[in-house]
Amino acid sequence: MLKLNVQKLKAKVVEIFEKAGVNEKEARIFADMLVQADQRGVHTHGIVCVSRYVNLIRKGRMKANMEYKVEKDRGAIAVWNGEGSSGQILGYYGMKEAMRKAKQFGIGAVAIKHANHFGAAAYYAQMANREGMIGIAVATGDPTMCPWGGAEKEIGNNPVAIAVPARNEVSPVLDMAQSVVANGKITNLRMQGVKTIPEGWALDNEGQPTTDMDRFYSVTPMAGYKGWGTAVMVDVLAGILFGGGCGWDAKDDKEGPGLLMMAWNIEDFRDKEEFLDAMDHRIQQYKGVKLAKNSKGIFMPGEIEDIKFKQSQEEVDIIDEILEKMNKTADELGVERISAES
Amino acid sequence: MLKLNVQKLKAKVVEIFEKAGVNEKEARIFADMLVQADQRGVHTHGIVCVSRYVNLIRKGRMKANMEYKVEKDRGAIAVWNGEGSSGQILGYYGMKEAMRKAKQFGIGAVAIKHANHFGAAAYYAQMANREGMIGIAVATGDPTMCPWGGAEKEIGNNPVAIAVPARNEVSPVLDMAQSVVANGKITNLRMQGVKTIPEGWALDNEGQPTTDMDRFYSVTPMAGYKGWGTAVMVDVLAGILFGGGCGWDAKDDKEGPGLLMMAWNIEDFRDKEEFLDAMDHRIQQYKGVKLAKNSKGIFMPGEIEDIKFKQSQEEVDIIDEILEKMNKTADELGVERISAES
Repeated sequence: MLKLNVQKLKAKVVEIFEKAGVNEKEARIFADMLVQADQRGVHTHGIVCVSRYVNLIRKGRMKANMEYKVEKDRGAIAVWNGEGSSGQILGYYGMKEAMRKAKQFGIGAVAIKHANHFGAAAYYAQMANREGMIGIAVATGDPTMCPWGGAEKEIGNNPVAIAVPARNEVSPVLDMAQSVVANGKITNLRMQGVKTIPEGWALDNEGQPTTDMDRFYSVTPMAGYKGWGTAVMVDVLAGILFGGGCGWDAKDDKEGPGLLMMAWNIEDFRDKEEFLDAMDHRIQQYKGVKLAKNSKGIFMPGEIEDIKFKQSQEEVDIIDEILEKMNKTADELGVERISAES
Repeated sequence: MLKLNVQKLKAKVVEIFEKAGVNEKEARIFADMLVQADQRGVHTHGIVCVSRYVNLIRKGRMKANMEYKVEKDRGAIAVWNGEGSSGQILGYYGMKEAMRKAKQFGIGAVAIKHANHFGAAAYYAQMANREGMIGIAVATGDPTMCPWGGAEKEIGNNPVAIAVPARNEVSPVLDMAQSVVANGKITNLRMQGVKTIPEGWALDNEGQPTTDMDRFYSVTPMAGYKGWGTAVMVDVLAGILFGGGCGWDAKDDKEGPGLLMMAWNIEDFRDKEEFLDAMDHRIQQYKGVKLAKNSKGIFMPGEIEDIKFKQSQEEVDIIDEILEKMNKTADELGVERISAES
């Protein structure tokens, strides 16, 4: 693990994206999102994505600068055609529009088809959270899981993130794949040379549990048939509902994933100050219970990531192989490398 | 397991509720909901609830006939105060209002505080499904789970149901508690004298896994910290957001649970015929994959319940002890018992 200066790392990511043709404003959104994921310790969705996105732009598969068409707009909802723009930039502006609608109608949802990989779902949900709203961000993904009972990948691990403001307590931020662990967590470990993975994480190509990295084929749905069921519902709400890609169509080189951004305007439901107090009170109730034997304590969803984030304001941990990967992309673009020493 | 005639059983449930002071229209809604759960094989939420609801009415804790106040109504959302009415009847009319709003604004949500136990969440989601919409029904529950890392119950298993229409394929209907199994499943087994429960279902009062029914204290969240996280988000969306009860406040003799009913009007997102075709196509993709070794096949969420439901159009399976419990309530009200022979 390397430590990098956060500001320098962000500047480098901006530089790389700008060199790839992205305008400064959007390059800064990329940098903020990707580095924030690493700051939260979510290395599966941090700067590891830089090469992937830059390659998509260079192959002409992803627009360097966002364009989209509003296909539907009715009351609290809208459907956008992202026309192959970045999932991150579309998600960012989609959540802004969902919040605008929520202020008008109590809730707002923006569905985006023909997008691209959108990185860490938590970021979008937290955008609403920071505005004192509840945010929900959902996306389809290309297949990493088998339908429950199957031995062939056909469904993504389809992330769902929900973020809720609190007053003084840590805002709960749930961000989860519908699999036991994210596919990227296993591929990151493979990149680091790990040969054995914990029980329950993966299936081999006959649909049987395996701990052998060489036999890893698909990730296991969380809680078995429940994770399969929730993944199906994400395919529906972030895809089929409005014609967004899911399954193999959600791949980078096909239609791309569908995104759904949603905001709930708390003050249309109850007094906002009361809500913030009630959140703190409830969090204190959760945390006030007797601990289990050998428990490390009670953490709210996202709290461990939040602790990591607060510790990473100046310097951020980056996995060596991930930095090398980004630096190779920098090389290709003629951008100077960044190192832990720089 | 006993077999009862569906129509006679429904008539008996109507008779019991009417005798308890419920008007005919609402008594029929109770009967339809409760017997449907048994027809789907979901005996935790079927007529096992009759005694509980009747007792609440007789104790004056639940209104025999629904009353509610609209506290907020803005655009796509509304907040109702259920004033201690039945969760089932409030949920039924709440979903109807959510659907009305969805037709106007694309999506609609009705949040209901001061309700009561609402039975099987799937019923409400399926109401929307039958109207060609996507339905989501969520409720807080009184504590059956410990916060992850804790050894004291503080959070419900907080059900979430989502139902989606399809054309010729079975409509996917997800209905899940945030625990590995529903609390009621274990208490039903205890009622039947079962002494050992499967690994992973339960914790003892020190927060340690147990298979001993006598040591059963709380149900385990599904997928560990993920089920804990989703349960927290249900507490927020079906409770704290609008002042609905959660945790110990969600108990029958306190504030009661909060409910959230939501509908998505498909035709505001895309052509409805196209959607139905796309659903069938996607279901066929899931089901078309190679099966895992020893797999019993690939089932959509709710499909096994749907098969059971279709087999139970004339006669429905009822657990002996559950029928006896309902008959005792009939005795108390001076209503003639029902038996498998009647």
